[in-house]
Amino acid sequence: MGAHALEKAHGGRGVLLGGVAGVPPGKVAVLGGGIVGYNAALIAVGMQADVWVLDRSIDRMRELDPMLDGRATVAMSNTLQVEEAISEADLVIGAVLVHGARAPKLVTREMLGLMKPGSVLVDVAIDQGGCFETSRPTTHLEPTYEVDGIVHYCVANMPGAVPMTSTRALTNATLPYVEAIADRGLAGAVRSDRALARGVNVMAGRVTYEPVARDLGHPYIPLSEIVDGAPV
Amino acid sequence: MGAHALEKAHGGRGVLLGGVAGVPPGKVAVLGGGIVGYNAALIAVGMQADVWVLDRSIDRMRELDPMLDGRATVAMSNTLQVEEAISEADLVIGAVLVHGARAPKLVTREMLGLMKPGSVLVDVAIDQGGCFETSRPTTHLEPTYEVDGIVHYCVANMPGAVPMTSTRALTNATLPYVEAIADRGLAGAVRSDRALARGVNVMAGRVTYEPVARDLGHPYIPLSEIVDGAPV
Amino acid sequence: MGAHALEKAHGGRGVLLGGVAGVPPGKVAVLGGGIVGYNAALIAVGMQADVWVLDRSIDRMRELDPMLDGRATVAMSNTLQVEEAISEADLVIGAVLVHGARAPKLVTREMLGLMKPGSVLVDVAIDQGGCFETSRPTTHLEPTYEVDGIVHYCVANMPGAVPMTSTRALTNATLPYVEAIADRGLAGAVRSDRALARGVNVMAGRVTYEPVARDLGHPYIPLSEIVDGAPV
Amino acid sequence: MGAHALEKAHGGRGVLLGGVAGVPPGKVAVLGGGIVGYNAALIAVGMQADVWVLDRSIDRMRELDPMLDGRATVAMSNTLQVEEAISEADLVIGAVLVHGARAPKLVTREMLGLMKPGSVLVDVAIDQGGCFETSRPTTHLEPTYEVDGIVHYCVANMPGAVPMTSTRALTNATLPYVEAIADRGLAGAVRSDRALARGVNVMAGRVTYEPVARDLGHPYIPLSEIVDGAPV
Amino acid sequence: MGAHALEKAHGGRGVLLGGVAGVPPGKVAVLGGGIVGYNAALIAVGMQADVWVLDRSIDRMRELDPMLDGRATVAMSNTLQVEEAISEADLVIGAVLVHGARAPKLVTREMLGLMKPGSVLVDVAIDQGGCFETSRPTTHLEPTYEVDGIVHYCVANMPGAVPMTSTRALTNATLPYVEAIADRGLAGAVRSDRALARGVNVMAGRVTYEPVARDLGHPYIPLSEIVDGAPV
Amino acid sequence: MGAHALEKAHGGRGVLLGGVAGVPPGKVAVLGGGIVGYNAALIAVGMQADVWVLDRSIDRMRELDPMLDGRATVAMSNTLQVEEAISEADLVIGAVLVHGARAPKLVTREMLGLMKPGSVLVDVAIDQGGCFETSRPTTHLEPTYEVDGIVHYCVANMPGAVPMTSTRALTNATLPYVEAIADRGLAGAVRSDRALARGVNVMAGRVTYEPVARDLGHPYIPLSEIVDGAPV
Repeated sequence: MGAHALEKAHGGRGVLLGGVAGVPPGKVAVLGGGIVGYNAALIAVGMQADVWVLDRSIDRMRELDPMLDGRATVAMSNTLQVEEAISEADLVIGAVLVHGARAPKLVTREMLGLMKPGSVLVDVAIDQGGCFETSRPTTHLEPTYEVDGIVHYCVANMPGAVPMTSTRALTNATLPYVEAIADRGLAGAVRSDRALARGVNVMAGRVTYEPVARDLGHPYIPLSEIVDGAPV
Repeated sequence: MGAHALEKAHGGRGVLLGGVAGVPPGKVAVLGGGIVGYNAALIAVGMQADVWVLDRSIDRMRELDPMLDGRATVAMSNTLQVEEAISEADLVIGAVLVHGARAPKLVTREMLGLMKPGSVLVDVAIDQGGCFETSRPTTHLEPTYEVDGIVHYCVANMPGAVPMTSTRALTNATLPYVEAIADRGLAGAVRSDRALARGVNVMAGRVTYEPVARDLGHPYIPLSEIVDGAPV
Repeated sequence: MGAHALEKAHGGRGVLLGGVAGVPPGKVAVLGGGIVGYNAALIAVGMQADVWVLDRSIDRMRELDPMLDGRATVAMSNTLQVEEAISEADLVIGAVLVHGARAPKLVTREMLGLMKPGSVLVDVAIDQGGCFETSRPTTHLEPTYEVDGIVHYCVANMPGAVPMTSTRALTNATLPYVEAIADRGLAGAVRSDRALARGVNVMAGRVTYEPVARDLGHPYIPLSEIVDGAPV
Repeated sequence: MGAHALEKAHGGRGVLLGGVAGVPPGKVAVLGGGIVGYNAALIAVGMQADVWVLDRSIDRMRELDPMLDGRATVAMSNTLQVEEAISEADLVIGAVLVHGARAPKLVTREMLGLMKPGSVLVDVAIDQGGCFETSRPTTHLEPTYEVDGIVHYCVANMPGAVPMTSTRALTNATLPYVEAIADRGLAGAVRSDRALARGVNVMAGRVTYEPVARDLGHPYIPLSEIVDGAPV
Repeated sequence: MGAHALEKAHGGRGVLLGGVAGVPPGKVAVLGGGIVGYNAALIAVGMQADVWVLDRSIDRMRELDPMLDGRATVAMSNTLQVEEAISEADLVIGAVLVHGARAPKLVTREMLGLMKPGSVLVDVAIDQGGCFETSRPTTHLEPTYEVDGIVHYCVANMPGAVPMTSTRALTNATLPYVEAIADRGLAGAVRSDRALARGVNVMAGRVTYEPVARDLGHPYIPLSEIVDGAPV
Repeated sequence: MGAHALEKAHGGRGVLLGGVAGVPPGKVAVLGGGIVGYNAALIAVGMQADVWVLDRSIDRMRELDPMLDGRATVAMSNTLQVEEAISEADLVIGAVLVHGARAPKLVTREMLGLMKPGSVLVDVAIDQGGCFETSRPTTHLEPTYEVDGIVHYCVANMPGAVPMTSTRALTNATLPYVEAIADRGLAGAVRSDRALARGVNVMAGRVTYEPVARDLGHPYIPLSEIVDGAPV
């Protein structure tokens, strides 16, 4: 999506990520090296771009280097590094997701001034509130808008663009839980499967996951108070 | 571009080329393994797609295998193989270019019936007339249309989408000739540089390149009859 | 072994796994992505085959992708996917091993009908009972037999084919335990080394590993009832 | 084939080419780095063996290094190097083919004494007389024999083992010539296609290719004396 | 550093690690496959050397293989293997570090006799006492000395050679702890951060880390006896 | 050598080419993408540096991309690009060699002002006069000097540092010619081997290679005027 938004006709800088013979490739900065960030970096590297991945964990960086075959520069995420990375990048991918909580704002509106006109921000964390200050949800039909000359791509529910693939992935991940619920009923499934229990956000009308309760201003009720025998 | 056209919102099958963990990737068939086809395949492989490249030359196939690190299937291009490849593909890239002549039609309208609904054809040869029977030039603003349920992307002057990159590439390639013309004048440059002479299509109002003359129905005048001392 | 069984003279389809320039490679389906399945896939990829690996764990799939450099298609294992994979494969490798228990039957006799005549099944799980319904142990001297036109390679004790390598591997893995037993005696070694204790299947004539006891119909006696002070 | 011949049950050393975790892989020496040697080395590298390729051309070595991703040791072929390579190797692949002439004998009977008992020689040049002194043609049904403790695999017409793949490859390569002969007759095709003309070994009962004539003791008649207008 | 010490002018064998077209590369043996050993092997492989990595853990070997893209030979570390590896190597890198304890002596003085004259030992464990019997600390200005014809490079504080890089790395790793101490005071930081608490070697003049206390002959006082509420 | 000169103790910037987890790698600019430049880039990439290769030929750039596995940025060499590359680089490798003629000066003294203090220039073309204006030959014992804060490494006869490797390489390349001269005498060898004849620079006291004659101000005498029957 980011590569596409970089085209001139879509408001971008008119840069081809992979470059061509004799012309250097575009630069991509991926903020966050979790599963989402790793995959974004993998595709960007595969498109022959010059890729930076920023992360806060040294252990994760040690893993990422061989996973990306040494083809991306993996560096510590801190304000200085983020500023350096976005000021050189043609494409910035915000991939900092915190489980079940709002994403931190890594790029403020002021920092947009460091970026090159026509460069592109893609906010993969938009469904958790976004990791750029200037992000607001868009749709697949009108996916981008511009702030201070920077193109923002912040489509809510990005996987919806490729339903064939997303549906199969979702099915793969959820089918075992669906089978458990079908076999043992909702309360029974929750009782016998700790992973399922930990995934319950709302049950019987109450918010049973603390970070969500806190962020949305609802009271938090532990699942074990609703379902007798659920794991604590 | 092809990956983008595959999105549901743009009429495509809704397939993510690279797949996700547990869901197989999309399939890409690249027709033609020259410079354009090789680069298309390289990017598709980099996006983690399942890629076929068809070409007519065994020597070229031997070169392509290590150039693509053995990550694409390189096969002989003939009618049978083209039919098999397009019937399995989510994305077909037509990259058969013949120097200075019309591209051959590799996929007929009838053959569209073999393809999966919502799959995408990208015709890189559109500036030479296209290599699909159903291709007609489109623009960056309205890039696609549908025939028999198959999405066609046939933007004329594709490099225009990324002018920053294209202009640098064009400058790299042409600057030596521009310098030669500036130094020695047009006729002088043509006389002393065989490569430049071979690139002249029209001079003094006459078509000096035979295939173009033939295809467009103009008389062909050898360059050496116009510029005294030009290479034959 | 599987590549060899595919030769015409040995009853196989006569397909070269790696293909040759212009001829697509053979297809290999590996059922199970554990250590055995990963290594089988690695070798098959290295032989330039077109490889699928099926596994049930999304986390394992995420690990396998970079370990195989993105060169195999890693997909969720379920009945539908198994049927699709074996119907396209020239070679199927059954590598589903469950620690100390019988392997599940992934391919029934009926499913053989989906496969191409002369394709090959290799059952690496044969020492745990095999993961194909039609598997029965064979020997290195008469390694294959045919059922419904499908070649079966089910040699019991496959590592026995390469004793030079197997012996060194076994020695590497077992020497630390041998040293512990030599230093501290059998009971002493079991007491002080939890890993060794967990590996004990039979001691003092009793079956001390529950799955084996259950599968073979013997009473199960915990090791800690036999060796005083052994880890529970 | 070579990997298979290394199994104990087939007379070999019982070494697994790829090794296993903690046990070094087997060593493979490929004599000759042309198309055949390159492919043998590629597969051996893919099977995780420790591979040497010997060739006489520095330019070819420079090409081979990136083609094999730096994963094989490419060295100059001379007597000293051949002796060092075969004395360390578990598997030696003779892939020195000279167009239309007898292969040179790179390994003499005496040199077998340098090799490890149970190591394997595969002579891909057997159809040109073989490149080991002790080679003699065998069949797919009885493919190996032993000389001085060294297993020889010298099957004539090796591609016959995988007819499905070989036939497609042969068809790819020959179909254009078949079409030319069908269109223009034998003499006409020879006249208009220099490549076809150069491939003619025998015409109208005469040997028209000089090296073959010399090696077999027949008189050599140039093709142009038989077909009027054939390229010289 | 090791590559440089191999130059003739610095006392080494005069071998280029990567070799050149037609000349086999140098051999590097890395003893220990932890983070330091992995990185040494990665660089040596990248310099096109022929690399062995020895480690004692089968699980670690299984990880290392794909991390090094199968380009190094990973083998079990034991006396026999160490002797074989150092006798073939041009460069041996000792990278066996035990957290907070003296490094074991893997190569005795007597074993130097197995090595080729002019080969090089680099002792990365020198700050923990070194893993070669003949190691003694040197400086960046006079980095090497010779014992029995073998060049030793044993610079204490090796990262000091590249302060620009080392300082950034150290800052990355320590900044979070510095921030914690600045925010909460020393005792407070130790109380709330188990990782920090585990890293304390000396506090209030007492040795709070047992292996260091044992190796240096000081009494060991648990941190929790000094800081009230510190993790045990 | 360049990596070594970057160490603080040798006057360099104190940067580790490959970086470490979380710290970006050093930048290397290779000027010239011929055999020497390619190998320099390959090693620098292997050491995990961030590498640019500049060359003047688009065809060569197309070859270099897959040869370097897309891991270096390959760009057109012109003044603008050279200035950009050296101003970002920690290490610049001058590898522009013109067969038998003086190397062009790519980096002037004035351009040193663009570079970072303590960065390093390695002039591989020093034996042809050097491709930096400020280069002058040095020796293996005193290999570097500084100009305007930039470290210069300009050792004449660099291969002399690794005589073991260089001698074998030279022998590989020259032995066939030595054999020809031994078999047929000097004049005879020159007559029958066009490659050897083209390599003759001086014969019978005359300069027989035109660029050398021109650069050194000697008269040029064609070889064919000295040896009767030598190729023209």
